[in-house]
Amino acid sequence: MISPATEADRQQIHDITARAGVFNQEEVDSVPAMFDEYLRYGAEASGYHFIVYREGDQVLGYAIYGFRDLTDGVYDLYWIAVDPSARRRSVGRKLLNGCEEAVREAGGRIILAETSGTAEYEPTREFYVRTGYKAEAVIKDFYKPGDDLYIFIKRL
Amino acid sequence: MISPATEADRQQIHDITARAGVFNQEEVDSVPAMFDEYLRYGAEASGYHFIVYREGDQVLGYAIYGFRDLTDGVYDLYWIAVDPSARRRSVGRKLLNGCEEAVREAGGRIILAETSGTAEYEPTREFYVRTGYKAEAVIKDFYKPGDDLYIFIKRL
Repeated sequence: MISPATEADRQQIHDITARAGVFNQEEVDSVPAMFDEYLRYGAEASGYHFIVYREGDQVLGYAIYGFRDLTDGVYDLYWIAVDPSARRRSVGRKLLNGCEEAVREAGGRIILAETSGTAEYEPTREFYVRTGYKAEAVIKDFYKPGDDLYIFIKRL
Repeated sequence: MISPATEADRQQIHDITARAGVFNQEEVDSVPAMFDEYLRYGAEASGYHFIVYREGDQVLGYAIYGFRDLTDGVYDLYWIAVDPSARRRSVGRKLLNGCEEAVREAGGRIILAETSGTAEYEPTREFYVRTGYKAEAVIKDFYKPGDDLYIFIKRL
């Protein structure tokens, strides 16, 4: 079941990020700061909406999305992470659908997901294509030399 | 002369933003919040480097740039604003050069400037092309329907 993340989910969110395997240490470390802002100021004010996919007490994955300032209806999908033990159970797709429904309800027009062009992120890029996103822009060597930025867009 | 902005520049920065003519109210209102973070936490921690171009006590323009998290050497150029009374005196170009020099010194590889595709922003787009930037990506209808996002890049 998809629901907003709560303080009690902190440890599981951290563990999933660390276990996911695709995030480097700097990326893993960036999640607690966003989570703190979300808990402290709320999703709207912080700009970070945290949602989780839960079965009973267990969090199987989480997503972070947020409104892009100075736009009319653009939302960034910052993050989707699924526990490796829950792979092949469509948890990522359910989280993505959860974000899209919330964005639609908020009157959003566009969801934007930035990701890397490296081989490691090929499953991520395929995931976005499969779920109706289009790579509308590529910036060469963005993250670092040899690591391009892909901007995936879904127009709702 | 280019220098870091100080608390004493607050009013002139506000006046230039309001008089510049191209920023909407939401954009004008967003500058004081960024300036407060810059003064309170410093340029590095806030992510907002404010620089001004000054003649004597008078601020003729300002720019805001900052490091893009989770990249190796990418800097966003958030803002350049020049007092309408100081147009045609290369203030914008001096501010841009000031940002580029600082980014180079910090080991930056890429400067990225996002701007609008509307007719109103044509002088801005021409300014970036003239100063060596390339529109490497365009996202249709990004800011709002009919208002595209242009991503200009300079590789240092």
